[in-house]
Formats: sequence, C-alpha cells, structure tokens
Amino acid sequence: MSSHHIIREKQEPALIIANGEACSWDLLAQLLEWSPFVVVLDGAILRVLDLGIHVDVLLGDFDRGLAREEIYARQHPIEIVHTPDQEKTDLEKAFDFLIERGHEAVNVVWATGRRADHTITNITNIVRYRDRLKIVLLDDYSRIFLLDRSYEKWYAAGTPLSLIPIGTVSGIGTAGLAYNLHDESLTLGYRTGANNYTEADGPVRILHTSGDLLLMECWD
Amino acid sequence: MSSHHIIREKQEPALIIANGEACSWDLLAQLLEWSPFVVVLDGAILRVLDLGIHVDVLLGDFDRGLAREEIYARQHPIEIVHTPDQEKTDLEKAFDFLIERGHEAVNVVWATGRRADHTITNITNIVRYRDRLKIVLLDDYSRIFLLDRSYEKWYAAGTPLSLIPIGTVSGIGTAGLAYNLHDESLTLGYRTGANNYTEADGPVRILHTSGDLLLMECWD
Repeated sequence: MSSHHIIREKQEPALIIANGEACSWDLLAQLLEWSPFVVVLDGAILRVLDLGIHVDVLLGDFDRGLAREEIYARQHPIEIVHTPDQEKTDLEKAFDFLIERGHEAVNVVWATGRRADHTITNITNIVRYRDRLKIVLLDDYSRIFLLDRSYEKWYAAGTPLSLIPIGTVSGIGTAGLAYNLHDESLTLGYRTGANNYTEADGPVRILHTSGDLLLMECWD
Repeated sequence: MSSHHIIREKQEPALIIANGEACSWDLLAQLLEWSPFVVVLDGAILRVLDLGIHVDVLLGDFDRGLAREEIYARQHPIEIVHTPDQEKTDLEKAFDFLIERGHEAVNVVWATGRRADHTITNITNIVRYRDRLKIVLLDDYSRIFLLDRSYEKWYAAGTPLSLIPIGTVSGIGTAGLAYNLHDESLTLGYRTGANNYTEADGPVRILHTSGDLLLMECWD
C-alpha cells in the first residue's frame, strides 16, 4: 500500500456499518464508491458478508459469540478487534478506534431502526465527539450530524430540515428557513425545531451559542 | 351505545396509529383485541384501511390533501378532525384530542422508524404529557414509556431494560438490574443507562428525583 493511498484513506470519511436496520443497497453503494475504510460492528458481520462487501475491520464485544472461522473463510484479510468494555456501545468504541487510527471523518449506516434504545443512543451519543471526529449518520430517510456553532449550506427549495437539540440549546438564530428562529432556545421533549424546511433555493444559516444541536435532513 | 360501553372505552387505553414504519400484524392485533378507540394520523389512513381495521377518528393537518370520499366510502362512520396548527406534531394533537375527550391512557404504534426526526420527536415529546395522559409507544422491538418518580415492576431474568434520560435526570437509584445506579445522574448524549438488563427473575425498582426518564423495554 503506497503512502499516497494511506493519506487518501484518512482524508476520505471511513464507513461504519452498525447493527440496526439495513439501508438500501443504493445508499450503501454510493458510500462505498470511494473505497472507504470499512468497520463493521459485531453481529452485523454476517449480514454484511452476504452483500459481498470488502470489510477492513470487525469490532465488537462478541457477547453473543463470534464465528471467527466462517468470517476468515469469507473475508481475508480482516482485522478483528475485540472491545469488551461494557461502559461504551460498540458504535462509540468504533469512533474511538477510528480516532486512534488518525481518521477525521466517518459516515455511519445501519445505526437506526429496530431497537429504539439503540437508535436514540446512537443518534445522541455523537455529540460527545465534537471536535474529535466528523460524524454523519445516514439511513434511507435521514442524514444526521452535529452542527458547529456557525453553519451555512445551500439547499434547494422545499428541503425538510429539523433542528433537534440534545438537551437545551441556546442562542439559536437561523436564516433561510420557513420558520426562522431569532436568538431562541430549544429543549428536547419540550420545544424542538422539527419539521422546518426551506422555502426557496439558497443558503441556510444556523447559529447557536451553547449546547448540542443536531441537524436532520430527512425525506419521505 | 350504553354508558357501560362508554366507561369501558375511556378506561381502556385508546390506540393511536401514527405515520411511521408499520408494526407487525401480531402486535397490532394484540392491541386491537379489546376494541380500543382508534385514532389514525393523517397520511397513514390509506395504509390502515388496507388492513381492514375499524377506525374511529382520522386526525391531521392534511397538508398533502385528503381523499375524503375514498375514506368515507371505505369506512363509515368515521370522525375526521382537521388540526391545522403548525406548532404541534400530529401526534401531539392526537394526545391533546384524547385528553379533551376524557381518555387517560393511550398506546401508540407506527410512531418510530422511517424519518429519524419524526422518531426522536415522537419519543421525546411524551415527557410533556406527564400527569395528563399515560402514553406507551410500541414497535416490533421496543416498548417505551415515561417513568413516574418511583417505579416497580416484576421482570423475568435477562430482560433488556434501557434508562434514557431526556435532558438530565438526577437522583437515580435502581435495584434489580445488572448495573444498578446509586443516587446518580444521567444526561442524554453523555451518560445514558442503555443496555442494562435483569440478572434474575424479580422486581425492578427505579427511583429518580428530577428530570424526565424514559424506560425502554427492548428486544432483538
């Protein structure tokens, strides 16, 4: 492997395939197009190998066992990383692993759907990786990421955008949305910014002064 | 309709069918067994009528239109409640509607899955109905409800139980779990009590002094 190849790998987002609901093949194929470094979590490995995808790392606590021989037979080489720590989810351990290996960004699929406790934990735990790893969660209906204090991006008219505060987020100001906020606070469970959207083609700006604010680009 | 019938209806939980991922027929049939008062949200109505279920109320803002004639042709009588308020989700409007009609409890299906913004909003917004409506969200993998300050229930050994704080929850003490908490705090995104479980058959006790704590009984 050339050093050129290594540099490209760490600049391109890695890809984590977690253990929730599988996404469409179209979405997965699109994310695999640039040959990202692929980490698969625990029990998802057999479903992933069935898809014929190249996997770099299998990571998990393997508390339901590990079909090591079957996996080596179907995918070689593969690095198997055993992470028995019960204080963290497999997804958090995969984030820690990628940070240790020098990755700066990651896309995550199969992290939502099925068990609600896993879904809400996977979505909300990305806030603790602010400034350490750029994380985007994707499924067939959603693209989710943590906003920097100042965010700006061009969107087409009619794009659904939901602002989801994890806890309380203060000093939120927006421009370019159908329902704009002006130095307001949002609190999960009590006042969220779900079901907003863009009225016209153009830039959307979202500022906030404190707290953890997720942006969800969602579609039906 | 006899007054006996009316009393029974309001004591049994009503059933809301929201507009997310459909659940299994088994789960739906189990919830329909006691002929609950059934409220269907907006665009879900055609999927529900395809199932041959009796629907009492269709509620929504109908911002994508309403096939009123087709609905009346397939389900009569049915009460259609138009709720254009853009400040609340259809699910919140359905909760408000049931409270107004004197209902004290409701089961909710199809509220999770598909769009992540809808899923997280539907799950977390139940906290604002504390003391007004007993809400249980159900899907094929999860049973979710808000805990009273003091909770006790018998569980079989090995039952997965996740404590999910919406914001910060303080003074949490538990007994009967594999990983018990002792006057501790949990904060969504930073420290949650996901992936806990019962080690033995017996009562589980969960106390907390402030904040909104969800219990999720989940399974694979």
